[in-house]
Amino acid sequence: MRIIGKQEIEDIAVGAALLGTGGGGDPYIGKLMALQAIEEYGEITLLDVDEVPDDALVVPSAMMGAPTVMIEKAPSGEEAISAFKNLESYLGKEIYATMPIEAGGLNSMLPLALAARMGIPVVDVDGMGRAFPELQMVTFYLDGVSATPMVIADEKGNTSLLSTINNVWTERIARSATIEMGGSTMTAIYPMTGKNLKDSGIRNILKLEEELGKAIRLAKRNNADPIKEALKCADGFELFRGKVIDVNRKTESGFAKGVATFEGINQYKGETLEVRFQNEHLLAQTDQRLLCVTPDLIAVLDAETGLPVTTEAIRYGARCVIVGIPCDPKWRTEKGIETVGPKYFNYDVDYVPVEELVKKGVKA
Amino acid sequence: MRIIGKQEIEDIAVGAALLGTGGGGDPYIGKLMALQAIEEYGEITLLDVDEVPDDALVVPSAMMGAPTVMIEKAPSGEEAISAFKNLESYLGKEIYATMPIEAGGLNSMLPLALAARMGIPVVDVDGMGRAFPELQMVTFYLDGVSATPMVIADEKGNTSLLSTINNVWTERIARSATIEMGGSTMTAIYPMTGKNLKDSGIRNILKLEEELGKAIRLAKRNNADPIKEALKCADGFELFRGKVIDVNRKTESGFAKGVATFEGINQYKGETLEVRFQNEHLLAQTDQRLLCVTPDLIAVLDAETGLPVTTEAIRYGARCVIVGIPCDPKWRTEKGIETVGPKYFNYDVDYVPVEELVKKGVKA
Repeated sequence: MRIIGKQEIEDIAVGAALLGTGGGGDPYIGKLMALQAIEEYGEITLLDVDEVPDDALVVPSAMMGAPTVMIEKAPSGEEAISAFKNLESYLGKEIYATMPIEAGGLNSMLPLALAARMGIPVVDVDGMGRAFPELQMVTFYLDGVSATPMVIADEKGNTSLLSTINNVWTERIARSATIEMGGSTMTAIYPMTGKNLKDSGIRNILKLEEELGKAIRLAKRNNADPIKEALKCADGFELFRGKVIDVNRKTESGFAKGVATFEGINQYKGETLEVRFQNEHLLAQTDQRLLCVTPDLIAVLDAETGLPVTTEAIRYGARCVIVGIPCDPKWRTEKGIETVGPKYFNYDVDYVPVEELVKKGVKA
Repeated sequence: MRIIGKQEIEDIAVGAALLGTGGGGDPYIGKLMALQAIEEYGEITLLDVDEVPDDALVVPSAMMGAPTVMIEKAPSGEEAISAFKNLESYLGKEIYATMPIEAGGLNSMLPLALAARMGIPVVDVDGMGRAFPELQMVTFYLDGVSATPMVIADEKGNTSLLSTINNVWTERIARSATIEMGGSTMTAIYPMTGKNLKDSGIRNILKLEEELGKAIRLAKRNNADPIKEALKCADGFELFRGKVIDVNRKTESGFAKGVATFEGINQYKGETLEVRFQNEHLLAQTDQRLLCVTPDLIAVLDAETGLPVTTEAIRYGARCVIVGIPCDPKWRTEKGIETVGPKYFNYDVDYVPVEELVKKGVKA
């Protein structure tokens, strides 16, 4: 157990956006919401997974929708509380703690803000170890945990409590409700026991996010290379350096989908990189080489500051470093690849771990 | 209080389809479901509105979606029970009776089938006195009754419990869920008290449906004109006789929308009639004359048998009589016209009561 204050929030926001691989929401809005909640309601208690009783009810809090919408329609905080109260009353049991469902600038921060407001702890665990666009894409799903009962709440005061036959149906019905409610909603989803977290969660994700953010912050102060420091933290690889020459982005079926194109600089001169995304970056390839593919993590970092760039913030002309990070081993199983691998997103490539792709041929 | 058996079901099905003004679902499927439920579970008790205690909980049961989908995807009966049980448990109160929310081949029959299966009575009341396409279009809405908490259930086992800030949001969110669930769902909606029914319901709708069906049935036996007999029952008017020369129909945004064109026969020779619909017939006009417009009822009847033809069953070459029936006075108020009048459906005409339009110029 430890206490999360302002400095931790600042660092977690940066690390979470990096692991959010372009999605998971805008880190700036998320950070402000968490800082404001701490200011008003006091610091937050962060629990280790092993500190949660096996039968305690833990409910992740997350924003659902297209990040392109979220930046224009920040949650007030009331939606999340309304979703939690609604679910608590339906289940007839008090919620012991909350947690992030994914890493992301917004979705790692919102549970912290909610915890401060509700006076409950946050558990240091998530269900992705990164961000993914659809709500069945969590390690809990691989182990058969139901996403429902789930509550969706919008900023107007509408709520919907879903019970579905499987998590793919949850995704479909919740997505269409989210689109109708204006493109983004707050959810209380995957109500779980402490036992579920211990069996199926990805542990210490907030700790890793904080370390990443801290590494980038201290590198700046020490005149070190923030990207190298971040890669050391996350066991990642530099894949490419380039300048954004094109971004093709549309908000479709409730997602931000598209492709960003980078013209190589430095040792990558002459090569062109395409990064495809659906909320999150999912595929990075040049004409000749596959560099990294989902479920491994693809992050786009600002070449100067090392700060992560979300898909909705990629701008023409920006100089970026594209890095790859191995995903959690739970995703590299057969069911993992089936659930979040390249074929699911209609990319005609086989999954190859990023460390093997790097060995095959990243330019020195 | 009286008992509904097989003959009553047969007659109600026909009358309900007529008042369903082209929508409200296929009368054949509805009739079969109600007959089968009676066969398995016994006859149904029909209550007069005044027999319902003021504080009793009454919940309408209705199918939501496009009739074009409903005819391919008949409900099993389980969805309706699942929706009812779900709502009962949420409200923590037993449901005293059910009722139709609208007149219609399917939506007048489904509450009868559900009542038989659950062993509860049906109340002789509805919220439209006809059928309308959207779920805020009920007399209860005019008096401020909330459509939620509402449960939507599909045939796969998915349910969604909605709580919304107003009934227009209920319509939007429930419609998108219905589309996602496959185009049609069963709903438990507008949970009401006996007092609500007494204040805002349209009374004796099943009685009128039965009389209409009986009039058409007996006319056939007595070599009388079934259409004349039906019009006597409902205080309606013959508007046109014609042959279907075109049907333009698409399933869009969860509705069956389109226009049917009739070439005049007999005294209407030389005229062409267009009937516009969105699930229900909403506007009937020739080049020269407006014949009838929502909220007044427009029914298309088979010229030989007098049986009502639903929008999804209108076929090229069919000879039909188009009739108009004055709507319930509750719809002729300012809020009524605003809610279901021609402007709401983007028709650029003012509402004029059908009896005035008839006086102005139906050909003799």
